Amino acid sequence: MAGRVWDAYLTEQDKAHVEYKGGPRTNGFGARPALLLIDLYRRVFGDRPQPLLEAVKEWPNSCGLAAWESLPHIQSLLATAREVGMPVVHTTGLPGSESGVGQWHVGGRDKPRRSHEGGRKQVEQIARLSDIIDEVAPIEGEAFLRKASPSPFFGTPLVGHLTALGVDTLIVAGESTSGCVRASVVDSCTHRYRTIVVEECVFDRHQATHAINLFDMNQKYADVLSLAEVQEWMRGWRAPEDYGIPRATAAR
Amino acid sequence: MAGRVWDAYLTEQDKAHVEYKGGPRTNGFGARPALLLIDLYRRVFGDRPQPLLEAVKEWPNSCGLAAWESLPHIQSLLATAREVGMPVVHTTGLPGSESGVGQWHVGGRDKPRRSHEGGRKQVEQIARLSDIIDEVAPIEGEAFLRKASPSPFFGTPLVGHLTALGVDTLIVAGESTSGCVRASVVDSCTHRYRTIVVEECVFDRHQATHAINLFDMNQKYADVLSLAEVQEWMRGWRAPEDYGIPRATAAR
Amino acid sequence: MAGRVWDAYLTEQDKAHVEYKGGPRTNGFGARPALLLIDLYRRVFGDRPQPLLEAVKEWPNSCGLAAWESLPHIQSLLATAREVGMPVVHTTGLPGSESGVGQWHVGGRDKPRRSHEGGRKQVEQIARLSDIIDEVAPIEGEAFLRKASPSPFFGTPLVGHLTALGVDTLIVAGESTSGCVRASVVDSCTHRYRTIVVEECVFDRHQATHAINLFDMNQKYADVLSLAEVQEWMRGWRAPEDYGIPRATAAR
Amino acid sequence: MAGRVWDAYLTEQDKAHVEYKGGPRTNGFGARPALLLIDLYRRVFGDRPQPLLEAVKEWPNSCGLAAWESLPHIQSLLATAREVGMPVVHTTGLPGSESGVGQWHVGGRDKPRRSHEGGRKQVEQIARLSDIIDEVAPIEGEAFLRKASPSPFFGTPLVGHLTALGVDTLIVAGESTSGCVRASVVDSCTHRYRTIVVEECVFDRHQATHAINLFDMNQKYADVLSLAEVQEWMRGWRAPEDYGIPRATAAR
Repeated sequence: MAGRVWDAYLTEQDKAHVEYKGGPRTNGFGARPALLLIDLYRRVFGDRPQPLLEAVKEWPNSCGLAAWESLPHIQSLLATAREVGMPVVHTTGLPGSESGVGQWHVGGRDKPRRSHEGGRKQVEQIARLSDIIDEVAPIEGEAFLRKASPSPFFGTPLVGHLTALGVDTLIVAGESTSGCVRASVVDSCTHRYRTIVVEECVFDRHQATHAINLFDMNQKYADVLSLAEVQEWMRGWRAPEDYGIPRATAAR
Repeated sequence: MAGRVWDAYLTEQDKAHVEYKGGPRTNGFGARPALLLIDLYRRVFGDRPQPLLEAVKEWPNSCGLAAWESLPHIQSLLATAREVGMPVVHTTGLPGSESGVGQWHVGGRDKPRRSHEGGRKQVEQIARLSDIIDEVAPIEGEAFLRKASPSPFFGTPLVGHLTALGVDTLIVAGESTSGCVRASVVDSCTHRYRTIVVEECVFDRHQATHAINLFDMNQKYADVLSLAEVQEWMRGWRAPEDYGIPRATAAR
Repeated sequence: MAGRVWDAYLTEQDKAHVEYKGGPRTNGFGARPALLLIDLYRRVFGDRPQPLLEAVKEWPNSCGLAAWESLPHIQSLLATAREVGMPVVHTTGLPGSESGVGQWHVGGRDKPRRSHEGGRKQVEQIARLSDIIDEVAPIEGEAFLRKASPSPFFGTPLVGHLTALGVDTLIVAGESTSGCVRASVVDSCTHRYRTIVVEECVFDRHQATHAINLFDMNQKYADVLSLAEVQEWMRGWRAPEDYGIPRATAAR
Repeated sequence: MAGRVWDAYLTEQDKAHVEYKGGPRTNGFGARPALLLIDLYRRVFGDRPQPLLEAVKEWPNSCGLAAWESLPHIQSLLATAREVGMPVVHTTGLPGSESGVGQWHVGGRDKPRRSHEGGRKQVEQIARLSDIIDEVAPIEGEAFLRKASPSPFFGTPLVGHLTALGVDTLIVAGESTSGCVRASVVDSCTHRYRTIVVEECVFDRHQATHAINLFDMNQKYADVLSLAEVQEWMRGWRAPEDYGIPRATAAR
């Protein structure tokens, strides 16, 4: 693939080294894939597309337009997964107000919010932070896991679910590229799943770190492919018999 | 301690071996304990005390009178923990209907329920299965974790929470002795917490396995102590400064 | 199966409850099994068969004759696995002297050893404690994992290895029934593997706890089957194409 | 801190966003720190300092001069830790030839090595790949863990060891910034350790990704501090009583 998003950020020595080593070999797809959607929640979308520096005034953790530009691609990817019968796993945050568990990011790094009226509006906003947005919300039969860490491999029964399904390949989308997506991809590779990142379907609030994390993941842990490449493979895939129903809840 | 509940179940050879080896040395308590309450939910209590073989007609997973006989002891233990400022962690099941994750116990081992009217009553009962009973329900500031496995060390952020608190000792109560309590105690020891099982505060639907699992835990993983012994220690314990507030949510 | 080893230990109420509930439904075998051998090391065999109460004088953690009586059954099971091309995973202990990690069992529960000369003989014995005995030692191509906890699901890359192989079923043998076997079986079930315990191929230093742990595992986590039943299934099993070679090391 | 290594890589929008949000708040140090050294093995050092594009001809995974320039800083950090009595954990790779577990990085991404004679020299080189280099080798009483994944939180008993020690803070050094260091830092934060990255003591084979991964870690997971800042804190730290001896092996 000539011309990747990360090229502009590499130094001359970086490029010479990559050139010398040759491209990373691909992981390739296995036979039993699942789609893993990371943190497509209100917190990073807000209620409407706005440029990043506007959006953060209302939603401090917004990813701005990058989120909304990815959204149709993610919807398309999800629609294809549902069409071809591929299992889907959704993740979002587990609110500390519910679990009593403190947040991993050592709470409160952000400056106090500025543009809010206090009172009802803010309370309502907080209540919606972890809602997966309607456009890509889970449907019956899809897994929905709430996590208290960047990667859903920690603190959720994800690995058990994937074993019950017999999954060998994870196709990853969501946000942020440099945060929870990266963490999920490292853990996916660690657990020996073939791992695919769909380039148009991941996004970040920072441009440099989006690009470089794609480079890192492609070098070390995953194949970073275009949506078109992934969908082409998905459409040619045939689900193994009985695939997609957790073993333990299948009729016995 | 002369006369333990498991003595009646050991064979002559078992007793001779235990005698030869001498009692297991105790783990002892550390300086930063937490109370871990396992699965005190409606599923095993039902709505009122009934002998086991009656109770299972209405609540197939009931532990019968053993549950209700333990309850005042558990309430007393929990009250002491709250008095002395010891962190408390409650656990219950994460329903597959919510997570989409199949159950670990390869669903449906039980015979179809017999005594139910179908319809509304059954639906209502199912909705309450994972409710922690009112007598020992979590209060503000206590952790509440939902698990999809016997032990809360899998599939929940428990280890992160314990590290945030700096816990070094887990005092364990709940049910069942031979199931989720045993699994939690093995994992607690595996993770290098000093582990204490409060004898009157754990219960089981089977008598032999209750006794033998206490023996196993006492031999290998934990100190099995009486409620009086544990409460005496708790009352003498002084919480370290700032103890009990997860680091990440403390004011910073 | 009429007449199980645990029947003699159950109380009347236990039996009535088991009778009422009906037998646990079986897990059954999947399509991609592996054999998991737990802790077949010198520590529990010593150098020759001796009755338990003799054996512990030389090897304090010996399981006595129970170990040596299981051994031909385990050899037979292992031979069958190798014949039919089933992946094998061996486990043993990771010595703290090598890792610097303290033992999980809160070291030194046993009385000081009595029958040893100090000096060279004892040093030599300690060096061999974690050696898997020759009769069932790993061969080229089999996994060999060293653990610092009862279950190899903690502190080893086991889950990654099983995912790389695509395993869906674990057949478990080794020791002790009430210790590391039980812990491994609970974790296997937790991780959603179909789990089979081969009755003649697990052993313990205590008779009551051997029997009751088989009962517990059969009730909750696994199918406890005879060696004949397991071997019959194994001989009828056909390995899926390319099965048994970790994905990541397969030719690519 | 004015002027960070990552500034040159951020886009205008990135800088504006970072400016708007204000710097991330610091994690700070706790009371019970440990030093975690990641993968200081021959594989990335080779046998002598050489520019990256020379070094990879002999040692395909070399980090070139970046490794050797960090080394005196790492030696200084390690010396300080030993002086003040801070526990040290070393990690390296667990060779698949020993464990039978396939590598996480989907083996063989690199082109075939070019500059080697075959035969004895290559075999000897391979045997040394996972050796921690002499300059920073473990000494008696320090933990030494071998991993089959980027982060030592997977597949080793690290979390048990840290709990036994009562650690609340991890100070991280080693390589590569964008690989195993990043993965370890994410997991450290996930597990709720206060996490410190010592800037001069981490290195990478790529310049852009070194810088951006420091930015990511500083934004989300850790405090990226200078060696001087860290050593100043270390010298003011007083070890709590009995600190540094795993509980389970302490005299009891």
